[in-house]
This record gives sequence, C-alpha cells and structure tokens, in this order.
Amino acid sequence: MPSYTPPLRDMQFVLHEVFHVADEFKAMPKHAETDVDTINAVIEEAGKFASEVTFPLNISGDEEGCTLDKSTHEVTAPKGFKEAYAQFVEGGWPALSCDPAFGGQGLPYVLNQCLYEMLNSANQAWTMYPGLSHGAYEALQAHGTDDQKKTYLPKLTSGEWTGTMCLTEPHCGTDLGMLRTKAEPQADGTYKITGNKIFISAGEHDMAENIIHLVLARLPDAPKGSKGISLFAVPKFNVKADGSLGDRNPIFCAGLEHKMGIHGNATAQIAIDGAIGTMVGEPNKGLAAMFVMMNAARLGVGNQSLGLTEVAYQNALAYAKDRIQMRSLSGVKAKDKDADPIIVHPDVRKMLMTAKAYAEGGRALQVFCTLLLDKEHHHPDAKVRKESGELVALLTPIVKAFITDNGHISTNACMQVFGGHGFIKEWGMEQYVRDNRINMIYEGTNTVQSLDLLGRKVLSNNGATLKKFGKLIGALVAEEGVNEKMSEFITPIAVLGEQLTKLTTEVGFKGFQNPDEVGAAAVDYLRVAGHLVFGYLFARMAQVALREIAAGNTDPFYVGKLQTARFYFAKLFTETATLMRNARTGSKVLMDTDAALA
Amino acid sequence: MPSYTPPLRDMQFVLHEVFHVADEFKAMPKHAETDVDTINAVIEEAGKFASEVTFPLNISGDEEGCTLDKSTHEVTAPKGFKEAYAQFVEGGWPALSCDPAFGGQGLPYVLNQCLYEMLNSANQAWTMYPGLSHGAYEALQAHGTDDQKKTYLPKLTSGEWTGTMCLTEPHCGTDLGMLRTKAEPQADGTYKITGNKIFISAGEHDMAENIIHLVLARLPDAPKGSKGISLFAVPKFNVKADGSLGDRNPIFCAGLEHKMGIHGNATAQIAIDGAIGTMVGEPNKGLAAMFVMMNAARLGVGNQSLGLTEVAYQNALAYAKDRIQMRSLSGVKAKDKDADPIIVHPDVRKMLMTAKAYAEGGRALQVFCTLLLDKEHHHPDAKVRKESGELVALLTPIVKAFITDNGHISTNACMQVFGGHGFIKEWGMEQYVRDNRINMIYEGTNTVQSLDLLGRKVLSNNGATLKKFGKLIGALVAEEGVNEKMSEFITPIAVLGEQLTKLTTEVGFKGFQNPDEVGAAAVDYLRVAGHLVFGYLFARMAQVALREIAAGNTDPFYVGKLQTARFYFAKLFTETATLMRNARTGSKVLMDTDAALA
Repeated sequence: MPSYTPPLRDMQFVLHEVFHVADEFKAMPKHAETDVDTINAVIEEAGKFASEVTFPLNISGDEEGCTLDKSTHEVTAPKGFKEAYAQFVEGGWPALSCDPAFGGQGLPYVLNQCLYEMLNSANQAWTMYPGLSHGAYEALQAHGTDDQKKTYLPKLTSGEWTGTMCLTEPHCGTDLGMLRTKAEPQADGTYKITGNKIFISAGEHDMAENIIHLVLARLPDAPKGSKGISLFAVPKFNVKADGSLGDRNPIFCAGLEHKMGIHGNATAQIAIDGAIGTMVGEPNKGLAAMFVMMNAARLGVGNQSLGLTEVAYQNALAYAKDRIQMRSLSGVKAKDKDADPIIVHPDVRKMLMTAKAYAEGGRALQVFCTLLLDKEHHHPDAKVRKESGELVALLTPIVKAFITDNGHISTNACMQVFGGHGFIKEWGMEQYVRDNRINMIYEGTNTVQSLDLLGRKVLSNNGATLKKFGKLIGALVAEEGVNEKMSEFITPIAVLGEQLTKLTTEVGFKGFQNPDEVGAAAVDYLRVAGHLVFGYLFARMAQVALREIAAGNTDPFYVGKLQTARFYFAKLFTETATLMRNARTGSKVLMDTDAALA
Repeated sequence: MPSYTPPLRDMQFVLHEVFHVADEFKAMPKHAETDVDTINAVIEEAGKFASEVTFPLNISGDEEGCTLDKSTHEVTAPKGFKEAYAQFVEGGWPALSCDPAFGGQGLPYVLNQCLYEMLNSANQAWTMYPGLSHGAYEALQAHGTDDQKKTYLPKLTSGEWTGTMCLTEPHCGTDLGMLRTKAEPQADGTYKITGNKIFISAGEHDMAENIIHLVLARLPDAPKGSKGISLFAVPKFNVKADGSLGDRNPIFCAGLEHKMGIHGNATAQIAIDGAIGTMVGEPNKGLAAMFVMMNAARLGVGNQSLGLTEVAYQNALAYAKDRIQMRSLSGVKAKDKDADPIIVHPDVRKMLMTAKAYAEGGRALQVFCTLLLDKEHHHPDAKVRKESGELVALLTPIVKAFITDNGHISTNACMQVFGGHGFIKEWGMEQYVRDNRINMIYEGTNTVQSLDLLGRKVLSNNGATLKKFGKLIGALVAEEGVNEKMSEFITPIAVLGEQLTKLTTEVGFKGFQNPDEVGAAAVDYLRVAGHLVFGYLFARMAQVALREIAAGNTDPFYVGKLQTARFYFAKLFTETATLMRNARTGSKVLMDTDAALA
C-alpha cells in the first residue's frame, strides 16, 4: 500500500523563499493579512486532511467505483467518499478562496492551489467532486445575475451543494460549435433545456443535497456554430424562493462510463428532458462565460498531475531505498545485505530524479501562476492586474499540457522503479498512471492546448506576451549574469529564450502562408516553451539555494535543490534540442502522407 | 468496439521484397521447401485465426479476467479462451516451427514470428498461454534429457500440454541469484521441490490437461548466488511411463495477481510443496538453460508490443477518418459535413504516423531478427550460423526494449487520437496501453536490457558484434551512396553509425574507470542503437520502394512506404540528438543526488 507525506518543506520553500508570497499579499488590500504563519497553518492543516481523510480512500475508491441505480437515476460514490466530503465541508475547505460576501474565507488562490495539490496527491477521483464545484462557483461569480449569485454561491461556497460543467455531447467535444442541446425560453424568464451530455465529471453523486449543472445549450434562434451557444444554470433540485429545495428537475444520470482510471469519480451521461434553467451571462455568449470555468479547470488539471507526480515519486523513492536487488556496478554498497538497495543503480536514480524534478518544477509553476492570478484579481495597480492576467493566459496551456505530459512520464517512471510489482494493483503505482492519463485529454486535449498557446496566445499578438515572460528571464540574466556559480542555470535559459524567439518568428512567418505549419509545430513548441518556463523557475530556485549555502545555511535541502536543478538541466531540459528541430521540420512530412494513411 | 485486419501486405513486403526469405530458406536444407506460396498461405490462415477466433475475446477477457477456485486451486480462464485454444491445437498452430521429430511442422521461425505478431494484435493475454509453452519447448529441446524430450516435447508440440517459466520469487526478480526454492535429490534420481514463486504467467488454467512448469531452484549443496541455481521440469500431473497422467503434483496456484492489464492471462502465485521434478541440464547451470527460454521470451515480448502497436494504429486511423471535429486550419476539407474528419489536423497525423512507423520498423526488425535465428539454427555454413547467432544476441535487447518502449509511445498516441473516448473501456484503446505496459517490465526490465546490450553485448567484446552490424550499414552506403534519391535515408544512418561508434568508445573508456558510467548511459544508448537499426531497416525498405516506383509500379503502397520512411527520419529518428547528448553527460549528475533523494 502506498503512503503520502504532504511536501510542506518544498511548498514553503516555493511560497516563502522563492516567491515571497506574503510580501506580495501585503500589496493587495484584500490579502494583506495573509502572513507567513497563516499560510503555514493552512497548508499544514490541508496536508493533514489530504493524507488522513482522502488518501486512505484512494485505492478502495478505484476498486469499487461508482454505482448507478437505474430506477432512481441516483449514483452512489465509493464507500467513505460521502463521509470524507462531509468532513471537508465541516472543515470549511470549500470556502477557502471564496468571496466573503458569500460566506467564503477570502484567502488567496495560492493557498487553494496548495490545498488542491495535496488533495490530488491523496485522491484525484475524490478531489474532482469539490474541484468541479469550484469551477462552477467561478463562472457564476463572474457572469451570474445577482439572483443566481444569491441562490447558488453561498451553498457552493459552503460545499453543501456541488457543481458541474456540462459541455460535451456524443458527437462533439473539442468542437462545441456543433452542440445540439436546446434551451427554450419560458414566459417566466426561465428556460426549458433538452439534450444529452456525456463525460460529465462528478455529474451525479450522493455526497451533496443538490448539484448545480452549468449547461451549454442553444436558443431557438441562435446562430450556427460557436457563436450560438448560451450557458445555463440547471439545478438537480429546483430552488424555492426561500432557498429550500423544490421539485426534482429532469436532469438525470442516464449512465456511467467505464474508464481507464479515476474510477471513484462519476463520469456521467446526463439526459436533460425539459429541465428548468436560468441563463448565465448573455445570450449566445455562453462559451465566453464557460471559459472562465474552463481556464480555472485547466490550471486544476495541471494540478492533478502535479499531485500524482509527487505521490508517485514519494512511493518510488521509498521502494528504491527498501528493495534490495543486485549489486552496484561500482562495488558492493550494503555489505550486511544479500544485495544493494536498487537506489544504487544510475538508471533508478534517473527515474526518481525525473519525477522529483517534474514535481518541483510543476509546484513552482503552479504557485507562480496562481500568485499571478491573485494579482490579476486583487492587485491595486491596474497595470499589474492586466499584465498578470496576460501572463496567466500565456501560462495556462503550459500548465495544463506540460505538467500533465510530465505527469505521464513521471508516473510511468515511478511505476517502472517497482519492476513487476509496479504492474500489480495493491502497490498503487499503476493507478497513478491510469488516473493521470485522463489529464492529458480532458479540458481540451494537449494538442488543443498547444494550438491555444502558439496560435492564440503567442502569434495572435506577435509574441508580445511571450516577450513579457522573456523580460523576466532577461531580469534574472541581468541580475546573475556575472555570477559564475549561476551560469550553469542561466546560460541554458538565455540561449533557449533566444532560440524560441527565432522559432516563433519562423513559424509565424510560415504559418502566415500555410496555417498547417502552426498545427505541425505547436506540440513541440509548447514543450519547448514549458522547458523555458521550468528552466527559469529552476534557475530562481537554484539562486535561492546558492545564496543560502553561501550564507552558511547547512540544511541539506538546499544542496538537494541544487542537485535537482542540475539533473533537470542535464537530463530533461536537453530534449529541447530535438523538439526545436522537429518543430522546424514543417508540415509537409506530416501532411504528405495520404498514401501512407490510406 | 475495435477491429483488426491482418497486415498481410506489409508482412509480405518485408518477407519477400525486403528480405527475400524464400531465397534465404533455399540455402537451408531443412527449410528449402518453404517457398513464397507456402509462406503466404500460412500467414493468411494465421491472420484468419487471429482476427476471427481470438480477437473477439480480447475485451471480454479483459473485463472478466481469470478466476481461482481456492478450494481446488484450479483456475478458469475467461469465457471462450478454452474453446479458442482447442481450435488453435486442432489447427496445428503450436507445432508450426517445432521439430518434426516430435510432431512439429518444422517451418521457419520467421513464420512463427508472423503468426505471433497477429495473435498479439488480436489478444495478448490469450496468446501468452501458447507463447509461454513455446519457451518451455525450446528450453527442453536444447537442454532436456532424451527421456524428458520424449515425455514432454510431443505434448508441448501438439499443444495438448502447456508450459511455464517459474523464476521470480517475492524477494527476487532481476536478481535470481537470491532465489530460495529448494530441490532435494531423491533416491530415484528425481528431485523434491519446495518454495514459492510469483508472477508466473499462464501459471494455472483450464485450457490444457497438463502444465509443465520449468522451475529454478537450489540443490542442497549449491553455491550461493547465481552459480548455484538449477532448472527442473515439474509437471502439474506426474506423467506415467506410458505417457498417461498420474498423480497431481503438489505445485499449486495459491493466488492470482490483480494487475493493470493482461487480465485474461493468469499471473499466478505458485506454491510448491514437495513437488516431484527432474533436472533440466546440468546441476548449478540452470540459469544458462533458462536463458534459452528467456532469450526466446524476450523476442516474444517485443513481438507483443509490435502486435499492440499495429492494432492500436489500425483503430486510431479508422477513428481519425470517421470522427468529424473542427475545420482544417488550412481551409474546409469536407464541405458536405459539419466539420472535417480529424485526420486533417497535422498533430493527429503525427500521432498516427508515429504508430505506423513504429509498427513497420518493428515488423522489419522482428523478421530480420528471426531470419537470423533460422540461419543460426539451420544454415549449412558454420560461419553464417555463428555470425547470425551473434547478431541475434546483439539485437535481442533492442527488440525487447526498443519495440516495447515504442509500443508505449504508440498505444498512448493512438489512444490520444480518440480524445475522451480513448479513456473509455468500450473503445478498446486504453486496454492496449495497459496491456503493453507490462512488456516494458517483464522478462528483464528495459533498464536490464540496456545493461545487457551495452555491458554484455557491446563493451565485453569491444564492440566487435556492433561492428558486424555496422558492416551491413556500410554495405548499404556503398551500394546506394551515389544514388541521390537514397541520400535522405542513407546520410542519417551513416552519420549516426559513426557517432555511435565514438560514443561506444567513450563510454567504454569512462566505464573502465567507473562502471556506473555504463549504467548511466545504457538506456539512452540502447535507444540510439534502436534508431540505428530502425534507420537501417527503413533505408532498406525505402530502397525497395524507390526501385519499384522507378520501374513504373504504380501501387500506392510504395509511395506510402516512402512517406513513412521520410516521417520516421524527420520526426522520430531525430531524438538521437538529445539521447546522444544525455548519454554523454555521465553518471555524476545522477549519482550526486544523495541530498535530493534523502
């Protein structure tokens, strides 16, 4: 059975020593009170909840899965899920970063980020129930009417009710412009919704008394395509004027999918048969409203893989120290044993360090990104708000695709450390691989993310936002360029930054003549950009570690951080050479394949 | 539900047009009669069996799994498995490449290879039942006494009985020197075996009336470590002098593992409680005897991933042509539809072509390698036999590790083509990913393969065998060096060949001072070597295609083959740049990580 220890030390390093988040919060009136002690107390308690309450339900939840009673359309989550959720609500966790106007605690997103990293390490399937709710909360807060906010937000904040995103239909996922669910206006201002949705995560369950579905549908007179989609709030139980629950709305679970992973989460087929809903945002502008939720969800998906990478790493490390097998190639290490622990083998270390580096890089990126999110929403300076928002938009597809792909590499490497035992369910490692696999697909496949990055976030403004990120690298180079000890971390990112700028211009130019050039380069491009971001973050972490060591700090944590940064640049960052070359190759070798793919 | 069409055209291309196997067989007296028509008839029938009999049982076998009756220790395979096996035996398939002296058909290994590729595409879990038997057959044929051969080989040849390899114990897998199972000599020349084995594939089932377990165990006076291991044949039912079944031998299934994949195959814990066995080969030389079986199994594992890559590719291709979603970036392609089929998108093509190139490269390598195996065993010229055997030994770890890693990449890419549907069991794609995952682990993890290649097969003879493979490349360069049309395929392998030679010398030199340098470079080294081999094979395939086209052949197959070769060199082969660099980095960055891995 696997174990999990909340990575508080590394989290605190990133929060306080690298990004000095408490100092940043002082500049934001809403968060000025969130000091180091508060932050540490919150993440410590969050870690306890994750490791003690939801982690023990991870393997059992996978084995048991969810059950649909076809006669009542009710879904039962795996044993213990409901009780754990009640404890989550009791502890006030859903309210952590919600608006105090609706009962929230109003704490920074950065703290919610740390909470969710640990929840995802503990139990991704369980975490998706409150996770999806939070997305619904954000969409309603941004686009809901006062009435909708009053009706739904306090209950979503407390966690008494949960939420979903109902987007996908059998014939359309990526291409939501094709969706068919209908919304007919009623005399009283509400809408009658009819249609079929699939792949609705946390779509039905027994953990909360009501579920607020946010449903994409078409008005009768809507234009064709993505410009004719509106968003509706459709509760499982209609809500009376006094806030109490009324009739059951005909929005039912018609089936549950049998999936590769996240078995503990109900992936529901939702049949909507004239259910009553209210419009969120403006008619035909539903996709924009939904994107508030989607962007939050994309950061959340990156966080799922960060969590899985961390927990997989911890268990592979423990196994590699415990399992004895063969002798070290460079001579016996454990003389008193029949064999050496497998951590003596260079390739076992490579697998472990790969996961460790991707976990620590991912954690730094997530904190970096959610701190920007806090600034976007709560910084007093409008320019800071705007620029922070632009950077978040640039980083979102990288968080989603790069961290989930790294999670795939890492969970597979950690499973491999276990040899044959990695393939056996009771060790828990193969579940991390299976659970992670969906993260590369949902909320926009990683290919869609790469097109979002290169097409929409980079080329559409001629690389202006990318240049802003480049300025951060430039500042670090200026600051540390003459520091010989930093050169091993600074030189690679300075070089790659220049190469990426050139590549951007090149692909932009070719794409202008043939847009398939953008599609051909995008996936490699995103991975190069991901390494540029991780390289920058590892350089900043190394900077802190070098300073501490220079100041006489003997905590081996800092030596470990330098070792991890060195490993990262030597063994992972280097794939940019091949990626750049492949991105440059162009679309012809891909598109000139009709005979091959006949 | 997925579908499967035996890839007869490509198989025939490799067999007849690239390797001219029928001509090669003419030089081997034992196979001189195996002409093109015979070969084509056999693979056509084999394809029918795979696609019609075992393929329909693949998803149901995964869902149902195997069942152990704890009171009788009997295991029931999934529904239909037993009947399909009876049909397999009835058709004479187990006997295909077995020795006519024991009832075999005596056909070349190359044909068995083609049969098994298709069986693995159809149903890896089912195929492991006859597959393991074949390994037991080979070990007994090579090392068994006349009595053992007479008792077991006719039944293993006919398939009436099956076989297993009982190596692993709970505390040792890679490090068999640690194994504890005991063998006590009895007065009648037999041995009483006692111990516990785990991870025994096809270890117990209801498909055959007897199971011959080949068990590694220690004699009472055996030296410690791997030089004190002997091999024993231990039947489930003792065999009487007249060949009929006698008493049940106390070698029982004590439990079945719950695994990530290959659910249809019984991965058994085997409790041996004084079971009677006979020794195979010499005392304390069991590992050598077992390696006959192991080497065959390693080629077989590569073949499993080749099969899964092919079937995953076929289904992803069909889906990509059928599923409409979004418009092509370069303009509407399917005007009459609401969206374009997703095959218009460059990255979808990249995923498809990756799987196609790895399937076709893997097929060429497997045929190349098993043809060498036929030469090793049946060529009249001793020098050819010897050199063929050396090349097979060099290629075996590449077949096992490179093809299974490629299978991981390919099955994941094909699953990704399906978007969210790829994660749903009914589409069948996620099963290919799960089934393939064990191939990177068992029969020696891919890290073990890389150490076998670099340490044992390359450095131990100062690269002599590698140079022999280099000569094949040299011959192709000499033949085609002036042909401008071939330069895009020849130049990269000529360059990489030189680079690999340099790298070998470099790592050999460093490894002489510090053996961890070999362990640090080995995995990257194997992948570079794999690309050198695939590059050579794609160049030879391109050569044939170019000649056919030049001769006026308008079959689009040849154009497709060139497109695949171009894609391979442009997008897959290019990772050698990063791999070479990483292999050169050395062990320090891996081994200087004690603080990081504290």
